[in-house]
Amino acid sequence: MKKQTVTIAVAMVTFMGCGTSGDDAGDPLGSWNEGAAKQSIIEFVESVTDPASPAFVAPAERIAVFDNDGTLWAEQPMYFQLAFAIDRVRALSAEHPEWSDQDPFRAVLSGDPDALGGLTEHDLVEIVTLTHSGMTTAEFRTVVAEWLATARHPRFDRPYSALAYQPMLEVLDYLRANGFKTFIVSGGGIDFMRVFTEEIYGIPPEQVVGSVGKTTVETRDGRPVLVKQPGIDFIDDKEGKPIGIDRFIGRRPIAAFGNSDGDLAMLQYTAAGLGAQLMVYVHHDDTVREWAYDRESHIGRLDAGLDEAHERGWTVVSMKNDWKKVFGFEDGGE
Amino acid sequence: MKKQTVTIAVAMVTFMGCGTSGDDAGDPLGSWNEGAAKQSIIEFVESVTDPASPAFVAPAERIAVFDNDGTLWAEQPMYFQLAFAIDRVRALSAEHPEWSDQDPFRAVLSGDPDALGGLTEHDLVEIVTLTHSGMTTAEFRTVVAEWLATARHPRFDRPYSALAYQPMLEVLDYLRANGFKTFIVSGGGIDFMRVFTEEIYGIPPEQVVGSVGKTTVETRDGRPVLVKQPGIDFIDDKEGKPIGIDRFIGRRPIAAFGNSDGDLAMLQYTAAGLGAQLMVYVHHDDTVREWAYDRESHIGRLDAGLDEAHERGWTVVSMKNDWKKVFGFEDGGE
Repeated sequence: MKKQTVTIAVAMVTFMGCGTSGDDAGDPLGSWNEGAAKQSIIEFVESVTDPASPAFVAPAERIAVFDNDGTLWAEQPMYFQLAFAIDRVRALSAEHPEWSDQDPFRAVLSGDPDALGGLTEHDLVEIVTLTHSGMTTAEFRTVVAEWLATARHPRFDRPYSALAYQPMLEVLDYLRANGFKTFIVSGGGIDFMRVFTEEIYGIPPEQVVGSVGKTTVETRDGRPVLVKQPGIDFIDDKEGKPIGIDRFIGRRPIAAFGNSDGDLAMLQYTAAGLGAQLMVYVHHDDTVREWAYDRESHIGRLDAGLDEAHERGWTVVSMKNDWKKVFGFEDGGE
Repeated sequence: MKKQTVTIAVAMVTFMGCGTSGDDAGDPLGSWNEGAAKQSIIEFVESVTDPASPAFVAPAERIAVFDNDGTLWAEQPMYFQLAFAIDRVRALSAEHPEWSDQDPFRAVLSGDPDALGGLTEHDLVEIVTLTHSGMTTAEFRTVVAEWLATARHPRFDRPYSALAYQPMLEVLDYLRANGFKTFIVSGGGIDFMRVFTEEIYGIPPEQVVGSVGKTTVETRDGRPVLVKQPGIDFIDDKEGKPIGIDRFIGRRPIAAFGNSDGDLAMLQYTAAGLGAQLMVYVHHDDTVREWAYDRESHIGRLDAGLDEAHERGWTVVSMKNDWKKVFGFEDGGE
């Protein structure tokens, strides 16, 4: 069975390599322009997989971790999980006429960008709590899956899943084809992400690390179910990322990909290992195909991390210059 | 690379099958006597892996969870992690002459079984806190590894790792050879277990779920390190087991193995899935080769779980009758 899976995976990699660009057949990173960023990824993988190399790493230790929002898929004009929560408030508002003049729901229901922008952290916690608790984990997954199947990104008018970065999908496949185990380590909600990571990224639920809400076990119709409760048990951001890696994975990664200061502790922790490591920042500098933001941004702020990446010679990927395409649909497909 | 790993795994299974018993060559469960318990495991595996069976389960969903203490290795005369903690107090006592007349250390250092038996839960928390915090995760791993390499089990005078149950090692290999992903879900400390699960059970750190102590990130010599702190963030026992499964794995298992009432919630949660499931209790009823205990035991008490297993037709493994051998060393090897 396992052999079949591997064969299928290899076939998929081959297929994707062919599909993305005719003249790059066989290039596992076909959506990447030639340059220092692409080269650093390839050289790292070749060195740790070559048994004759002093940098060789046994397959079991080939752990690669990826932030999600802004690293594997877009995060503008707001984190997609927040877009889900806002859409969910709207969907539930029919049963709650009182929300129309009750903060923070009034602001959400107005759809007014200024009102949405004025939501405080306390407001956001209230909205996320309302939309992420008081139901079983199975019910929550259904709601998220339905949203993913129907919601459209406001700028691109496509499903949010289409906003995955094609070059990063290629990196995930390339690493796995070389014996790596790929993990997501994100500040996003673990239950939210697990609905789609396998389909979009090929990353199974058990390789997703994220922020964790409280859950309880309850008996319904004689069967135990898990019920999502208000409150957070673990925030997988900043210093929480190395803690989450230690807790969920139990090994230090040898490759880490992020895009913001929230990922800096994860990259530093990876860099502190012995042996070969690869630390990569995706830098949002493409106003045409995506967005450009870094030091001053509220979402995905990259400031101290950018300085440290330059100082320490980490790989900084220019979305504008290093990526032939950003999204798969740039070919014209969905 | 992955294909190589699979081939090696298959080769190991074949080798183990041949090694354990000459006349059972090719039987992946060669240390099991023929009977209902062995048959229930084989029938389950064959049904979920047969694409023509209505019970077929896709490889990605073939999640099997195992309690550790009393299910994969012995837990008498005390949990091995507590034996580690007590040995550690002794090792540290040279630097702490004041402990010789200070409770609970006096009791530990006396080596008197009655004094040890009289330790309260508060005493045990103090001992575990002392021996499991105040150091980096890497330092802790080194201490545990050194203990495992040197400590001897009091009854069998062998390394604790030799107390793994040979028939259960075969079950782990058999499931993996059939496309299952095997996880430990134990009340034991996650950092403690991860030191040895890969070597003893073939279960990598990222597939170990356990109780989690607090950790912080600190900078030492300019490098981030994880430091184990006093206090527990998550207890992976009883109702905590389904919560731990949901948090760390994110899928409902289709097979669950336990030996105590502490595993009952995990077995109930597994049984509540749709489709085929296998729930197994290992019943300690072998006074000669191991120990016999169930309803009245302080360690590994199996009371409500035993009743429910009989009522619901779960598999109850009699160590005495279902296992040809309990430990690998019964052949005479180490």
